[in-house]
Amino acid sequence: MKKLWPLLFLLACTSQKEEILINAFEKDKSSISELMLQQQKAWNAGDLDAFMLPYLHDESLRFVGSSGLNKGWKTTLDNYKKSYPTTERMGTLLFENQEFEGLGAEHFLVIGKWNLFRTSDTLSGYYSLVWQKGLEGWEIIADHSS
Amino acid sequence: MKKLWPLLFLLACTSQKEEILINAFEKDKSSISELMLQQQKAWNAGDLDAFMLPYLHDESLRFVGSSGLNKGWKTTLDNYKKSYPTTERMGTLLFENQEFEGLGAEHFLVIGKWNLFRTSDTLSGYYSLVWQKGLEGWEIIADHSS
Repeated sequence: MKKLWPLLFLLACTSQKEEILINAFEKDKSSISELMLQQQKAWNAGDLDAFMLPYLHDESLRFVGSSGLNKGWKTTLDNYKKSYPTTERMGTLLFENQEFEGLGAEHFLVIGKWNLFRTSDTLSGYYSLVWQKGLEGWEIIADHSS
Repeated sequence: MKKLWPLLFLLACTSQKEEILINAFEKDKSSISELMLQQQKAWNAGDLDAFMLPYLHDESLRFVGSSGLNKGWKTTLDNYKKSYPTTERMGTLLFENQEFEGLGAEHFLVIGKWNLFRTSDTLSGYYSLVWQKGLEGWEIIADHSS
């Protein structure tokens, strides 16, 4: 029995380490999901500035949309404002997150389906978001939406 | 002058650390670019199996394309084979990488434009690839192409 202690200790440490990793994943997933719920709420209140809050406020933000690759927070906001000038055009947004993948301790990938319900039509597509843990919390550093 | 030594030492260490990071980034960028050149070559030789080599050989591979989100290496290969049954349909592929971003030490984001030149038409679009450093080198764990 005595000989088993180091092994038991090792097993306990491993499972504790795994538990810490799982807890970190669930915590990150929950923080990001909460931010996306706030974005959805902002969009549905017609507030594009608030919707853009979690995007990296920097020239290095990457956004791939129907017009190809654009860079920078301001360009992304301006493009949203051009495409969605009224609350009628904005409609009601629903995010459906489908895949969460931790990329090391400070990055996270979220893949999901977006739905836009409008009086005139219903649109949908997919997004892949790369999030980065900054000093002020999680931020989107790259968005590919199609 | 004597008092300056610790500061000079610190500065030297910082710049050395930065240099190591820059070297690591350039090395990773170069490895991934080389793999993508090999993929392009495989596509243009009509060899989809070889094209798929850098994709994670696992059920957890994520691929977002025109038909939405699909998971798994085999599903992705089968979908490619369905969409591009002949070398004529495959045409000539050209990748144009535009953005490289290191995500911690073991992940990398590559954004670029794909071009497909065929006798019947020319297609183009954008890809966002998330790469992961595995035991056997860099692998694509998520691909969003539109």
